[in-house]
Amino acid sequence: MGGTANEQQGNTAYGKKPFKRSASHFTDRITADGRDGWPVEAGRYRLVVSRACPWASRAVISRRLLGLEGALSMAITDPLQDDRSWRFTLDPDGRDPVLGIRFLSEAYDARETGYPGGVSVPAIVEESSGRLVTNDYQQLTLDLATEWTALHRPGVPDLYPVALREEIDEVAAGIYRDINNGVYKAGFATDQATYERACLALFQRLQEVAARLADRRYLVGDSLTEADIRLFTTLVRFDVVYHGHFKCNRWKLAEDRVLWGYARDLFQTPGFGDTVDFDHIKRHYYQVHTGINPTGIVALGPTLAQWLTPHHRAELGGSPFGDGTPPGSVPAGEEVSAAGRP
Amino acid sequence: MGGTANEQQGNTAYGKKPFKRSASHFTDRITADGRDGWPVEAGRYRLVVSRACPWASRAVISRRLLGLEGALSMAITDPLQDDRSWRFTLDPDGRDPVLGIRFLSEAYDARETGYPGGVSVPAIVEESSGRLVTNDYQQLTLDLATEWTALHRPGVPDLYPVALREEIDEVAAGIYRDINNGVYKAGFATDQATYERACLALFQRLQEVAARLADRRYLVGDSLTEADIRLFTTLVRFDVVYHGHFKCNRWKLAEDRVLWGYARDLFQTPGFGDTVDFDHIKRHYYQVHTGINPTGIVALGPTLAQWLTPHHRAELGGSPFGDGTPPGSVPAGEEVSAAGRP
Repeated sequence: MGGTANEQQGNTAYGKKPFKRSASHFTDRITADGRDGWPVEAGRYRLVVSRACPWASRAVISRRLLGLEGALSMAITDPLQDDRSWRFTLDPDGRDPVLGIRFLSEAYDARETGYPGGVSVPAIVEESSGRLVTNDYQQLTLDLATEWTALHRPGVPDLYPVALREEIDEVAAGIYRDINNGVYKAGFATDQATYERACLALFQRLQEVAARLADRRYLVGDSLTEADIRLFTTLVRFDVVYHGHFKCNRWKLAEDRVLWGYARDLFQTPGFGDTVDFDHIKRHYYQVHTGINPTGIVALGPTLAQWLTPHHRAELGGSPFGDGTPPGSVPAGEEVSAAGRP
Repeated sequence: MGGTANEQQGNTAYGKKPFKRSASHFTDRITADGRDGWPVEAGRYRLVVSRACPWASRAVISRRLLGLEGALSMAITDPLQDDRSWRFTLDPDGRDPVLGIRFLSEAYDARETGYPGGVSVPAIVEESSGRLVTNDYQQLTLDLATEWTALHRPGVPDLYPVALREEIDEVAAGIYRDINNGVYKAGFATDQATYERACLALFQRLQEVAARLADRRYLVGDSLTEADIRLFTTLVRFDVVYHGHFKCNRWKLAEDRVLWGYARDLFQTPGFGDTVDFDHIKRHYYQVHTGINPTGIVALGPTLAQWLTPHHRAELGGSPFGDGTPPGSVPAGEEVSAAGRP
């Protein structure tokens, strides 16, 4: 998860301090001009993600929408990390086949010996050296959209249009504070007042967002942008884990006509729902956070079939990819398993 | 709670055995002919309940519907019991003003010295001796309906009609196993398989009950019966505590048109909703079961205002009180506080 140094609060050892997400430590950027020493280059880097993690899922979606699958390979960790960090236990012999490592921490160690902070996803690792380049989840997707342009597929949408950046940044800041991170502040609260503050701010922000989306298909402009990606990764987890496990339960997303329509619209858009693994999501949250779910039992609900029902959002106008086109199908080997799909 | 010897499983000390509700130990009956030594008599007995407890709430509803408030007094415990049992901490000086005791266990001790079992509500205590008479939650409401008839108000409904008893018993048996007790089997499960079995049986039974109620207003016959009371006390807690806290989350009650209409119909019927204290319910479950909710944080949701929305169930025919009439208003001093109402 993005900035997980403090995400251990969900485990048994959490203390009495309010949940605070750590800033990313490794903030080198991969850019077209390579000014940090990491130029954009096909086949040079590997994106390491967990499909459970909302911060990593931003990058998975951006990579799909931008058609970067061929240029930037992807490693998918086990949804259950342990005290040795994220594990490649889904791969043969428990090793990532490209990097050859068993734990993501090995790439962090290769970059900085004895780094004491958390090992988080998303992470981009240089394939040849095995060194971590960046775990800066806030910047990473922006760079995929704006620095990796030479490697984009034809017909990509403009996910971070210059003319709309100020508005996208402002909308995304509120969504980050009260929604993306707000669910964690509620779920990892150790006292009633902290929890209630986070939960109330969350639902107030959701209501503001719902009002904004009542008569427009997307958050900013007439097409998909970075802002929609950031909101989606929390919404898709909402009823499945945040509602019950994190006690964000004033209402389910499925009870709000606008947000539920918006979330299903995105889910059914190529590049969004085809990256979502509900099985990974549920097992990660319910089994890793033993501090709030000591039995580790994974809830059976909610039923997922409704994710595929008609949303009628196209009637609001706009066009998901602007002048561009949808991404192609999911590359072989990256399909979400049947257990994780609605 | 009814038969709580094993309800401690929800606390920190629970073990690896499947949840099993203990049978009531004190099964004397208060009858018209007094054959167990406890004749029906106005002013002789005191009903001790927690408004949090679904088993006790059956008795609270029956007492209201039958107009027994004047004949059978009622003591309401704090929703949070501790290792000394249910407490009268809502009363001045922390003592029940009639029985003069601080803990319900004192009435159990007065009945049987050194009784090693659990101290459960509902309990009926003889006022003069302070001795427990019965904690048999399964029989208690049936006796209120059929043995206390001399003290019923005029116009009572027949909650356990002779001609329908077989059908009521059969319907109630399935509801008990899979719904009333099923939510506890799911919530207190300590392994995935036990949880899943209980959760699946619960939702299967709910669907059967919903199918039964799709074209009839009440479970058995054309009027309210004991079966409806027993289903109601679980349904009214469903979205508030069982859905999240007990992981019974395939869907919310509010997402099922039939059951949600049925539950609201009953909630809005005098004698049902006016006994329900959502504040007591939420604080009890979230704060007592530290084994499944270590922080003791009480979830803010769900919103409750919808309990008062139109249900249109009257269109199905039937009449709540048969040839009888609704109960009068709640006696002074027994009103649910504003914090507990929608």
